[in-house]
Amino acid sequence: MRKFLLALFACALSVPAFAQIGGQQVLIDSDRNLATAEWKVSSAEWGGGRWSVQLRTLHGGRQEGVQVIDVDNGAMTFTIVPSRGFEIWTAKAGKLRLGWDSPIKEIIHPSYIRLTDNGGAGWVAGFGGLMVRGGLASFGSPVQDGNEQLTLHGRVDYLPASHVSVRYEASPVPRLVFRGVVNDTQTFGPQLRLTSEISTPIGKPEVAFDDEITNLSDAPQEMQLLYHTNFGTPLLGAGAEFVAPVKQVAPMNKASAAGGLAGWNRYSGPHAQPYSAQVFNMQLHGDARGMTKTMLKSPQGDMGVLMSFDTKTLPYMSLWKNEVTPKAGYVTGLEPGTGFPNPRPVERAAGRVPTLKGGETYRVHLAITALTNPAEVARAAADIRALAVVPPVVSITPTGP
Amino acid sequence: MRKFLLALFACALSVPAFAQIGGQQVLIDSDRNLATAEWKVSSAEWGGGRWSVQLRTLHGGRQEGVQVIDVDNGAMTFTIVPSRGFEIWTAKAGKLRLGWDSPIKEIIHPSYIRLTDNGGAGWVAGFGGLMVRGGLASFGSPVQDGNEQLTLHGRVDYLPASHVSVRYEASPVPRLVFRGVVNDTQTFGPQLRLTSEISTPIGKPEVAFDDEITNLSDAPQEMQLLYHTNFGTPLLGAGAEFVAPVKQVAPMNKASAAGGLAGWNRYSGPHAQPYSAQVFNMQLHGDARGMTKTMLKSPQGDMGVLMSFDTKTLPYMSLWKNEVTPKAGYVTGLEPGTGFPNPRPVERAAGRVPTLKGGETYRVHLAITALTNPAEVARAAADIRALAVVPPVVSITPTGP
Amino acid sequence: MRKFLLALFACALSVPAFAQIGGQQVLIDSDRNLATAEWKVSSAEWGGGRWSVQLRTLHGGRQEGVQVIDVDNGAMTFTIVPSRGFEIWTAKAGKLRLGWDSPIKEIIHPSYIRLTDNGGAGWVAGFGGLMVRGGLASFGSPVQDGNEQLTLHGRVDYLPASHVSVRYEASPVPRLVFRGVVNDTQTFGPQLRLTSEISTPIGKPEVAFDDEITNLSDAPQEMQLLYHTNFGTPLLGAGAEFVAPVKQVAPMNKASAAGGLAGWNRYSGPHAQPYSAQVFNMQLHGDARGMTKTMLKSPQGDMGVLMSFDTKTLPYMSLWKNEVTPKAGYVTGLEPGTGFPNPRPVERAAGRVPTLKGGETYRVHLAITALTNPAEVARAAADIRALAVVPPVVSITPTGP
Repeated sequence: MRKFLLALFACALSVPAFAQIGGQQVLIDSDRNLATAEWKVSSAEWGGGRWSVQLRTLHGGRQEGVQVIDVDNGAMTFTIVPSRGFEIWTAKAGKLRLGWDSPIKEIIHPSYIRLTDNGGAGWVAGFGGLMVRGGLASFGSPVQDGNEQLTLHGRVDYLPASHVSVRYEASPVPRLVFRGVVNDTQTFGPQLRLTSEISTPIGKPEVAFDDEITNLSDAPQEMQLLYHTNFGTPLLGAGAEFVAPVKQVAPMNKASAAGGLAGWNRYSGPHAQPYSAQVFNMQLHGDARGMTKTMLKSPQGDMGVLMSFDTKTLPYMSLWKNEVTPKAGYVTGLEPGTGFPNPRPVERAAGRVPTLKGGETYRVHLAITALTNPAEVARAAADIRALAVVPPVVSITPTGP
Repeated sequence: MRKFLLALFACALSVPAFAQIGGQQVLIDSDRNLATAEWKVSSAEWGGGRWSVQLRTLHGGRQEGVQVIDVDNGAMTFTIVPSRGFEIWTAKAGKLRLGWDSPIKEIIHPSYIRLTDNGGAGWVAGFGGLMVRGGLASFGSPVQDGNEQLTLHGRVDYLPASHVSVRYEASPVPRLVFRGVVNDTQTFGPQLRLTSEISTPIGKPEVAFDDEITNLSDAPQEMQLLYHTNFGTPLLGAGAEFVAPVKQVAPMNKASAAGGLAGWNRYSGPHAQPYSAQVFNMQLHGDARGMTKTMLKSPQGDMGVLMSFDTKTLPYMSLWKNEVTPKAGYVTGLEPGTGFPNPRPVERAAGRVPTLKGGETYRVHLAITALTNPAEVARAAADIRALAVVPPVVSITPTGP
Repeated sequence: MRKFLLALFACALSVPAFAQIGGQQVLIDSDRNLATAEWKVSSAEWGGGRWSVQLRTLHGGRQEGVQVIDVDNGAMTFTIVPSRGFEIWTAKAGKLRLGWDSPIKEIIHPSYIRLTDNGGAGWVAGFGGLMVRGGLASFGSPVQDGNEQLTLHGRVDYLPASHVSVRYEASPVPRLVFRGVVNDTQTFGPQLRLTSEISTPIGKPEVAFDDEITNLSDAPQEMQLLYHTNFGTPLLGAGAEFVAPVKQVAPMNKASAAGGLAGWNRYSGPHAQPYSAQVFNMQLHGDARGMTKTMLKSPQGDMGVLMSFDTKTLPYMSLWKNEVTPKAGYVTGLEPGTGFPNPRPVERAAGRVPTLKGGETYRVHLAITALTNPAEVARAAADIRALAVVPPVVSITPTGP
């Protein structure tokens, strides 16, 4: 028996030259009653490139029990948070940090968050990620919508993943794929499931989201999905610019309209109180397949971040400018979504709330690429210009109440 | 010393023939600062019959940290949930599943539930059990009752047990007994304790509840208690029937009265939206000791579930019909209680809210028996008919607002 | 290698006579991702006096996962609760228990508490400690204050410590020091940090708090801080007396004023319902450095507790009399604070809400001493008399609405 096992083992090691090198591991799975506290793997075990993956459990204060996956793909590091809706907390490519300096430093466990606090704005208390989804049943401003009490940006960011797995694929392009399943389900309430594949090519400063929202019920259901993607320094600063192939743009509300539309896509640096955040809602041009690109360009134009996404399922985009003082949450959000962050009834009336049939799935693709030198920034700007075939329609009329 | 210990051990093994075979184990006890993550025992260790008991801790998603006790008494399996008010999640006797297909699949940890959500209806978000208690200070519709904000069905189902133990008794009838203590206590609020003994006879498809509610204070306190016992397929379906020795019955509210009372105790199968759940409130005839029986009979009449309980302390009963589509929470509830699920002030005014003196205890007995063949169903029907000495008084006037 | 280690070890043991004997241990630190489940140390390891310290994790019911530090300084035992705002649950010096019989017996984990419950009074549900802070952004009655929904006594008592360490100092006075850091921070909300040093001299029945509140932001912030220090039997009883160098005193509200001011500082024993708690708000005389003393004296005058604090940063004090039945929460609170427990807008209007500049720190000193014999009580009374240089101004006009 032992000899047989050794033979098997030897066989597994002597992979033929043409075989695909790879590996796969399930880390969390509520169906199988499986959880993993600590785990790691690297290119040394699964072969190919130079990368590493580590699952850790956080301890102390309000982060006690939160799980994170630290990824290093050789060109970029980033951290996925299974305990917080499979969001991405932060990323770094060389000197370029993607993310922001949130006033909260711990990744707060959902049990310390009360979404209904402060008139339904409890969501902000633990807000700190680079890419935080709003959804799945709703996002946007708190509102009573029929029998449902909707809280800011919905529940998904404070729901833990029911399934997490990681795999390494050697071909066609060597990459790591992280699969997470988050159930935004309640008895006699929403029955929506996020199945997210977050992937990263080995050696490139890029992370992509292939997300599916599935209606688990046998009855039709509405859904809403927002990619609240957030950047602070070094990209944000006086002179930074948001670059996009804008089809039309308007302020979200009167406060955002107050300063006019001139310079709406440029940043002026931190402001002391009193200061009001501004939101601009827009639609973008896409290419023949509907893919579009937007960029946040650093003040000196030497760095940036490119967001590429599919306008067929993310047809709307919001730009949130929160240029407060550095320690108060200095950040801007580039936020593609199924609609704008108005209260859901407003979005429904405007035809911006998709409905899924029982069992139906909604698919989204979005990628974030770090631009670490002026040449990459210039190329991204040229790509975006090529999409902007006609000048934008700029409106001062708010899109919401 | 070692010899002495061995002698002791041998002595323990050589139990005299007349001795009672049995065993007992404390699994959780907050007074002794004791918790157990995983544990099991079977008839092999404690002798007698053919049974097994396993305590497990669940992992992944929103079930992380929830503890369950899986019981197999040789004729029936069932799962007790210490983390959720010592409720029973599901049971099975041969092919007959007792319980239902809740839209939520994980047994959600209380830390993810906010009872005040949706106007005080947050309780439903994690609802999925076979037998879920409402109480201990209140059950029924949410309401502001003086200084108290009462939420749907109270707190007890989202309180973890402070004490859990299991014992095997060989005589008079071989049975397993699970003891759970749940404290529904708050400083300057309710001081009520549930001490529940859930017992099951070896080799019979039956589980019984002997529950005590104790007023821990030195002042009088109100209490309310509901046994929200829930069934889906295979018992529920078009043609299924609720059988009971009804003394009087009335709809709970206008919506339940809308369809009239004809066929109130029969089921018509799943309905698509729009559909309104119906609740019928009743009092039942009992035998000389006050014991009564009700049955849910399967569409073909070949299977059923019998609920037997003491009308002296559970004098009221509600039947909840939620015949929605299969994935939306298709279920009916047979719900004996201290009153009806109206808001507590309505129940108080109707004299259906017991008050306990300081230190006083309220005792309840209820049993659930799986009926797995037509003969058992027929016998249960005959027993129920024997109790129904006079025809029911049927009223169309709602019992509540 | 082994020899070298042994040599090092021997060296560590052969401490020169003039060296300071001591030790230090970090137990929890979210920055370093460090938590400790169980740990202990005593004078045997760190030398000097006769004392012990034990960190434990509690299990069962709603205390599951709560961490406590049991301290025995040779003359007094007390329990610090890192999971609950670094509060002190109870203390004992010989036969004299400091603390009270809360209706809740488990130290409830914050995940089971909803501060917004019952109109913002959810804080009381888990109330049970000897010394419980109110703060850091607010304390006092629930109120909507602009965009902020303030709940009773704020959040700090239900926030877990992000850092906990313990050290033993041999000189100048042998003592144990427990350092705890609690972050009352929310994104786009309060950014306040409590850094508390709880210290106790070896062999003396005393525990002192040196607390710092720091504004972590770069913008000004208000803060409020209350030391809700609570005593039941044996100090509380008919004939017990609150002794203080009162400068001025007034009832907090009409209910507290109803009985007049005669006997406001004396206790009459437990009362059955109906009974209304009373609160009296006061300012005290201090010595040249601003230090003041107050005492709760037992019915026979043979025992007491002395509270000493700095009126420069704790200029106000409230006395809360809750003389209910023994099992309903029989307790009195001696509560120095930055203001009175009125709603924050009332306190702001009265000039009793400090504002901290960005980065500024507010320092508080407070000590609690057990008086275990008549001589100590008499000496404390004399000390307090010496501070009361002029008779108090007694007003019947409530300080709040």
